[in-house]
Amino acid sequence: MDALIQRIMRDGRNLGNGILKVDGFINHQVDPVLMQACGEALAQRFAHVGAQKILTAEISGIAPAVMTGAFLGLPVVYARKKKPVTMPTKVYHTQAPSHTKGVMVDLIVSSEFVHMGERILIIDDFLATGLTTEGLVRLVQQAEAQLVGIGALVEKQFEGGRALLAQYGVPIETLATIVNMDDGKIAL
Amino acid sequence: MDALIQRIMRDGRNLGNGILKVDGFINHQVDPVLMQACGEALAQRFAHVGAQKILTAEISGIAPAVMTGAFLGLPVVYARKKKPVTMPTKVYHTQAPSHTKGVMVDLIVSSEFVHMGERILIIDDFLATGLTTEGLVRLVQQAEAQLVGIGALVEKQFEGGRALLAQYGVPIETLATIVNMDDGKIAL
Repeated sequence: MDALIQRIMRDGRNLGNGILKVDGFINHQVDPVLMQACGEALAQRFAHVGAQKILTAEISGIAPAVMTGAFLGLPVVYARKKKPVTMPTKVYHTQAPSHTKGVMVDLIVSSEFVHMGERILIIDDFLATGLTTEGLVRLVQQAEAQLVGIGALVEKQFEGGRALLAQYGVPIETLATIVNMDDGKIAL
Repeated sequence: MDALIQRIMRDGRNLGNGILKVDGFINHQVDPVLMQACGEALAQRFAHVGAQKILTAEISGIAPAVMTGAFLGLPVVYARKKKPVTMPTKVYHTQAPSHTKGVMVDLIVSSEFVHMGERILIIDDFLATGLTTEGLVRLVQQAEAQLVGIGALVEKQFEGGRALLAQYGVPIETLATIVNMDDGKIAL
């Protein structure tokens, strides 16, 4: 998707160790107009999958997921990393390694909001190792819901997430693919 | 704003101690179409203030702030509660008490994204005690930026936030006002 690719080329920074700094337009500072265009693009790519709900992970998945949900007319559930006081006892829970923090993080969804048989589309900001996405897939499985697609804004192809997630047999769509970040490059 | 008020009346739950459960449409599960309508309503109310940027706090402020930003064509910065690896050394930092968690939380903004003289509109999900909002105001002041307005989806009038924030002399706009939550009520 051209607008996102151009923006990464202009404002993205390679911090080394595969870390892409995009906090001027995706996380920390968000460009809502760009996110709206990305949401529309993801909505078009997944228009055929019959999703009934979008699942993402807090924090930086929220903006792209909500914009995609606005175009598809679907509710968005974001997995929490801590259980808030408003959440009831029955939850779906798993853990996934944080890509940038080097620790395991909790992913928690209330059983009120993901239901047996529900068709779930996962949307996140990054598809990198795929381990966070796979954590979300486990939550879908715990709820006996049905995964119907996986989408992300930015794919770091060299981290292998797409290959890992191929086993789930659903369409995987990303809007910008980074093929190499060696030697300070950001090769799209 | 009628759609939000109706939704609170239908799906909101009074959990006691002034805690309003709205996690079926504002936090945890988000209704993007409702959030879009709320963003449009807030954008209309603040169209005249000449804002250049929107500031909110993660996590549940992101959806309403991004939707408001989409209508106003403005970038949105969300204060982080933890400093990510992509954030540089120079930050604006304060603390505010969490309403529902009973602890102090950090509010951190990179100096890259709030600038001296910039006209800042604060948007959040709740206006309750006003203490989180006041934390965001301190970040605006640290950056020597200029606060031009404060908006929220839901105001809990009985917690006094509006009175606390009046000292800053900017328009305060909320879309649904809850006047009383005693005895299990949600009185709008």
